[in-house]
Amino acid sequence: MNQVSPLVTAEVIAVGSELLGSTRVDTNSLFLADRLASLGIELRGKSVVGDDRQRLADVFRAALSRADLVVLTGGLGPTDDDLTREVVAETLGLALREDPAIVAEIEDRFAARGLRMPQVNRRQGMVPRGASVLANPRGTAPGLSIDYEGRVVVLLPGPPREMQPMFDALCAGALAARVGDSRIHKETLFVAGRGESHVEEIAQPIYSRWAAEIPPIETTILAVPGQVELHLTLRAGASDEAAIRVRAAQAELVGALGEDVFSTDGRSMEEVVGGLLRERGLTIAAAESCTGGLLMSRLTDVAGSSDYVLGGAVAYSNALKTTLAGVPPPLIEAHGAVSEPVAIALADGVRERTGASLAIGITGIAGPGGGTPEKPVGTVVIALSGSEVPPRVRTCSFFGGRPQVKFQATQAALDMVRRALIFAR
Amino acid sequence: MNQVSPLVTAEVIAVGSELLGSTRVDTNSLFLADRLASLGIELRGKSVVGDDRQRLADVFRAALSRADLVVLTGGLGPTDDDLTREVVAETLGLALREDPAIVAEIEDRFAARGLRMPQVNRRQGMVPRGASVLANPRGTAPGLSIDYEGRVVVLLPGPPREMQPMFDALCAGALAARVGDSRIHKETLFVAGRGESHVEEIAQPIYSRWAAEIPPIETTILAVPGQVELHLTLRAGASDEAAIRVRAAQAELVGALGEDVFSTDGRSMEEVVGGLLRERGLTIAAAESCTGGLLMSRLTDVAGSSDYVLGGAVAYSNALKTTLAGVPPPLIEAHGAVSEPVAIALADGVRERTGASLAIGITGIAGPGGGTPEKPVGTVVIALSGSEVPPRVRTCSFFGGRPQVKFQATQAALDMVRRALIFAR
Repeated sequence: MNQVSPLVTAEVIAVGSELLGSTRVDTNSLFLADRLASLGIELRGKSVVGDDRQRLADVFRAALSRADLVVLTGGLGPTDDDLTREVVAETLGLALREDPAIVAEIEDRFAARGLRMPQVNRRQGMVPRGASVLANPRGTAPGLSIDYEGRVVVLLPGPPREMQPMFDALCAGALAARVGDSRIHKETLFVAGRGESHVEEIAQPIYSRWAAEIPPIETTILAVPGQVELHLTLRAGASDEAAIRVRAAQAELVGALGEDVFSTDGRSMEEVVGGLLRERGLTIAAAESCTGGLLMSRLTDVAGSSDYVLGGAVAYSNALKTTLAGVPPPLIEAHGAVSEPVAIALADGVRERTGASLAIGITGIAGPGGGTPEKPVGTVVIALSGSEVPPRVRTCSFFGGRPQVKFQATQAALDMVRRALIFAR
Repeated sequence: MNQVSPLVTAEVIAVGSELLGSTRVDTNSLFLADRLASLGIELRGKSVVGDDRQRLADVFRAALSRADLVVLTGGLGPTDDDLTREVVAETLGLALREDPAIVAEIEDRFAARGLRMPQVNRRQGMVPRGASVLANPRGTAPGLSIDYEGRVVVLLPGPPREMQPMFDALCAGALAARVGDSRIHKETLFVAGRGESHVEEIAQPIYSRWAAEIPPIETTILAVPGQVELHLTLRAGASDEAAIRVRAAQAELVGALGEDVFSTDGRSMEEVVGGLLRERGLTIAAAESCTGGLLMSRLTDVAGSSDYVLGGAVAYSNALKTTLAGVPPPLIEAHGAVSEPVAIALADGVRERTGASLAIGITGIAGPGGGTPEKPVGTVVIALSGSEVPPRVRTCSFFGGRPQVKFQATQAALDMVRRALIFAR
């Protein structure tokens, strides 16, 4: 039996030539960093390697010499490119043998869809001697966990939805048993409707005090499209006191930032708004022009959203603003399609036709064409109509390319619903 | 003078502890990969290292042993955390000396804002013996380029807006003079409607021949939601012949994979479908249930899509299927909302109401709830109605979570439009 020493440091290796091009980044390591932190394991380095046997062996060997835990993602597929399993087994000097149970499971997966398993998939049933197999209910490639001279090597598939539950199961099981007493306590706050520097101006005088305490609470500010995030981190023993200290710090920031804080538990804006609608027994509809359906798509990304999302209209052309949402053509002629009266008419019209308790109307110029000096690209008008809330309308101006403008417009619309439901009583 | 051999391979090292957390990825390497490829230099590996002297030295030494060019980003700031300059100089055995011209420039930058330069900023004026200084018009940290035993080491600041123009200047100047005649010729094929293993079965016998040629064409297969991608790469002289060889190889795969190939120029499915609609002067509308507007949102992600996207209905509730798309309630009662007759009625109804040349109807079960033994989660029915194309309807079965089911359904719907426009004449 191996000597059991706690796992303190980790390295992550993402495998795949596609991750070395100019279009794709490895995002799996963000999830892994989060989960490792919650076990108190510190991620010390990340690497990306192409589908290249020699280089993968080299990078893997170096990581293993430095870290207690090495997690590799990708390269477990059925094709000739997929080298992770073989390179790890070879580097550790472990023979590979086919596990008939895995092959049978993969055959069943194909059979369930009326397909024959291609022969190449047999590769995915190869297991290094002594490795534990990690079940993959969401794909054909099982993961592998290998104890090697007191260290641990974990092989995970590349697709996030297969990788994530597999690693969560491993964290709860075998890895939890191997970590020390230290934990990383984290809390977050998400803020909407305020820029990064304004959040920093309010937050910095507060969190700078915590950085001097022992052990310190570290605070990072991160601006992503449509929201500013504050992340608080405290490394300490797995005590209630430490968890309470970080939550108290979070509460102090919430007090200072007020109603701009929309989430303190990591939930997205669409989840927060969905939760409020469900709580209050309300339904929602939308008439979207420049956002082209993105607002309703985001609302319906939330499981169970059919309880409160009725639907609505995508009125991209002016004619459909009339046909689907009842906007009078003279209103469009008088004010232009991108105007407050038209946004209000879209919201009122779709609410009337759908019978929703609340409705959003959005009209704007997503770009790159269509801007004018008075209404430049990025101009978006958002209106809210509802029996339970006072009507609102707002003309916004967003920066960025077409997808950024669309996203920020939907974020501002959802935030308008949130504020109306919470603060307009 | 060093012996001049062409630079063929590169590695990138991003330095900074903030890149090892759960929120930030290194995106500088995407820009660098693009610029390197256009010089014919192949990016073979990427690493992220925290602000840790020993580990940075270790990773840098390993990269230098493998690659002709090592580019480091970040860690050039004025604080104690910023170790890149010192670690590189020490590893290469080059003494650091202060360059008074750089210090004077930094002092001027501060003075222009009415400020005195903090003493810590002197660090940014330290230059390893023999290094070339790369001007930074957008910040205080200059970059550095070092010739070392026939290889090149480049140090760049972390902020993209400082790093990018600096690297572009270097590519146009010193690096251009150091690359060989070799270029990287790339072509891609995107395939829809077929799984990775089935694409591999058809493609592998073809591309395996090219791997044996000199110089070889390398082929990578990549499965992402809704599509399988084949990437062909040939490293050869900057000749027309090489470019023609890769395009001929691409054409051979297109011949074998037939109408499942939807893109040979990197365009997304929504761009391809948009292009076909525009070419033929047609318009499109949709009535979406389970996809919640995602189909129309994807179509309108393309600049200029207002020329052919009219809009449509998001008919999430059954009542709206009737109100917005004219689906007769008895049809829903008889067949259920997720059925071929209802999908057809959605497509026909929204086409009639919008006057579009083509319309899509989508109804399905995105999950996680709502599945039954006969219609499990992932069942989606897609119908196409059009004056110019024969009507189509298809019941699909998708794997994955809610967002994956939604995305794959929109991909299949767009692919149905594409096939109808290309092959149904």
